[in-house]
Amino acid sequence: MSRLARLPGLGPRSARRAALALLQAPETRLQPLINAMQEAARAIHTCPQCGNLDSCTPCSLCADPQRDSSVICVVESVGDLWALERAGMHRGRYQVLGGVLSALSGCGPDDLNLTGLMERIQAGGVEEVILALGATVEGATTAHWLQEKLAPYEVAVSRLGHGVPMGGALDVLDEGTLAAALSSRKVL
Amino acid sequence: MSRLARLPGLGPRSARRAALALLQAPETRLQPLINAMQEAARAIHTCPQCGNLDSCTPCSLCADPQRDSSVICVVESVGDLWALERAGMHRGRYQVLGGVLSALSGCGPDDLNLTGLMERIQAGGVEEVILALGATVEGATTAHWLQEKLAPYEVAVSRLGHGVPMGGALDVLDEGTLAAALSSRKVL
Repeated sequence: MSRLARLPGLGPRSARRAALALLQAPETRLQPLINAMQEAARAIHTCPQCGNLDSCTPCSLCADPQRDSSVICVVESVGDLWALERAGMHRGRYQVLGGVLSALSGCGPDDLNLTGLMERIQAGGVEEVILALGATVEGATTAHWLQEKLAPYEVAVSRLGHGVPMGGALDVLDEGTLAAALSSRKVL
Repeated sequence: MSRLARLPGLGPRSARRAALALLQAPETRLQPLINAMQEAARAIHTCPQCGNLDSCTPCSLCADPQRDSSVICVVESVGDLWALERAGMHRGRYQVLGGVLSALSGCGPDDLNLTGLMERIQAGGVEEVILALGATVEGATTAHWLQEKLAPYEVAVSRLGHGVPMGGALDVLDEGTLAAALSSRKVL
């Protein structure tokens, strides 16, 4: 139960409820969950090229011949990759860093998963690297560091646009976002 | 107390606490608040040109000779105007619509305060109209309608940039925002 409570989104109370629900139906709930978890632990691997999690190696996104290999989108985590895939706008490849530079959490340049990205750039054919990192201090620091690291290569480096999020009312937005939205305004 | 509870941000409980705090100190809290409210009711007017609230006519933003009269920023409400002023990026004038087109709330084109904007455009000297409306269905509808209304005039019409808000992590953003951020990405 204490291990359930360590999962994100579950506190001690909800962990207790989940544990009870599992224990009350060991045949129909607990054992199937154990089997599914064992299957996942056996089958899911980190893609050696991009760092995505998938049951095949290389992952289905790296293997898909329909996707554009000339554009690589750099994300912090697999969760961010999933979010971008839900948006369905990026038809290129990915690189999952596994973190962002942060003095607080002790994540330095050597902790970032960059091998697959550098290999693909050096192999040629990459035209653009999109730094899809969060608009946080750590994200901006990492983007800046990556921009300098990629400067010697002939690739365009871009970052996500900043501005008003969809559905957003103006008066609840912070000053930085409003300033970014004004400076990135589009002529209609 | 029931009138206090109608204020935004106050519910029945907090209205009760506020009312009690006022009544317990009529000399030092209640009467000064009454005086300040009476003074505000007397002094604050809607600017006949832009629709802003201020104690002078025209408002201090319309009267300021330092501001650029060639750029007018169209906002839904005075709250949005204040938000943009806090951001400190816009050095032009404003137009407060007092609402956005919405079938639900029954706000039609005639309910929008546009007189000051059209007068200033027809008088000449206006080069750009920035539609700083929220990224909601109503905001987009109003922006589209205004764009068509302004089409006959020689002014550039722009809208705020859409994208990742400052401090925003990617995996909590909706698909529309991520798609907008990707399509408005900037080469570094």
